[in-house]
Amino acid sequence: MRLRKRPGAMEVLRERPGIVPQKPEQLRGQWTEDKPLHVELGTGKGRFLARMAEKYPSTSFVGMEKMESVLSYAVEGMEQQDNVRLVHGNVSDLQDYFASGEIDRIYLNFTDPWPKNRHEKRRLTFPTFLRLYKEVLSPRGDIHLKTDNEDFFTYSVEQFSRNGYHLNNLTLNLHAHEPEDNVRTEYEQKFADRAQRIFRVEAYLPE
Amino acid sequence: MRLRKRPGAMEVLRERPGIVPQKPEQLRGQWTEDKPLHVELGTGKGRFLARMAEKYPSTSFVGMEKMESVLSYAVEGMEQQDNVRLVHGNVSDLQDYFASGEIDRIYLNFTDPWPKNRHEKRRLTFPTFLRLYKEVLSPRGDIHLKTDNEDFFTYSVEQFSRNGYHLNNLTLNLHAHEPEDNVRTEYEQKFADRAQRIFRVEAYLPE
Repeated sequence: MRLRKRPGAMEVLRERPGIVPQKPEQLRGQWTEDKPLHVELGTGKGRFLARMAEKYPSTSFVGMEKMESVLSYAVEGMEQQDNVRLVHGNVSDLQDYFASGEIDRIYLNFTDPWPKNRHEKRRLTFPTFLRLYKEVLSPRGDIHLKTDNEDFFTYSVEQFSRNGYHLNNLTLNLHAHEPEDNVRTEYEQKFADRAQRIFRVEAYLPE
Repeated sequence: MRLRKRPGAMEVLRERPGIVPQKPEQLRGQWTEDKPLHVELGTGKGRFLARMAEKYPSTSFVGMEKMESVLSYAVEGMEQQDNVRLVHGNVSDLQDYFASGEIDRIYLNFTDPWPKNRHEKRRLTFPTFLRLYKEVLSPRGDIHLKTDNEDFFTYSVEQFSRNGYHLNNLTLNLHAHEPEDNVRTEYEQKFADRAQRIFRVEAYLPE
């Protein structure tokens, strides 16, 4: 998500320690006691995460976002739920915040496609990231990916297949037969208004 | 390919033993001496195979087709090439005709999508077929699949990923940036004329 720096963003985050833990790395391995843990990487303004948390009260949600300005908007939409928290951090540091096998599901929603070849390493489905996710995902864990970017989608499907993930519920036009349980992100709503295709796939670790 | 039974089809096939070997199972393990062997499953009227054989004289091509009426049309388009042969047979009997590791590439072009769930087992990317292909593919062998059917495509991509294949060159709109070396099949030409999307993927066996 592209956004100008928001003055006072850090203060907004500090004011809500219940939602934005001050030292999230201290929660490593103990984010939940018995609820499943779902983590959205690049959570943006948090619309998806807030709605999911509301819809699934018995799941614990964490949103990771590296830009504090963006995160400061997300936190403001999350007054109501006690099953959602936000982490200001980088995906490459995922293991600092989550223990091996701690995460049951990762959401990658409209993450930056980094279309240039020389930026391939930054795509959140580059092999180094897919290996990282394997470390923190539980044995039956999976990744749910949505994007409007066709090239990023085909790239991701190829990378999943080559890095030990199996694919499920692959769809090339999510809104043509939108599942009842689909929760739209900010981006997704915008693209839907323009009748653009949304691509979606689930990648899971075989037993 | 749907077609009426053609009277005299069997005779047409018998008249060209150089292209349609009388006992193809006797060629098992010795289809070629040193050329790579590419096999199209469900070769239809053979337009793709004939053009490929013309374009790649140092590759040996075999087309398999279970309907003799269809095959009789294919044989008539193949007077010129000596690197192409046709087999009248079923894909499920693939191992009767080809030895372990004998095939370098399998083409699945616009095969019947069998859209009904109860016909899933007939799709040529059903797991039993994918296991069969593994037996006859060489260590660096691959499968090139093209289809106009979105559901068959997504099904096939999922099945490849779950049955030990890695994916490459996945494209959701082949004709948008048609590769120079793409050879169109009869179906493909028809769909292109209607501006329908053609989906394509390559599946290979990891080393």
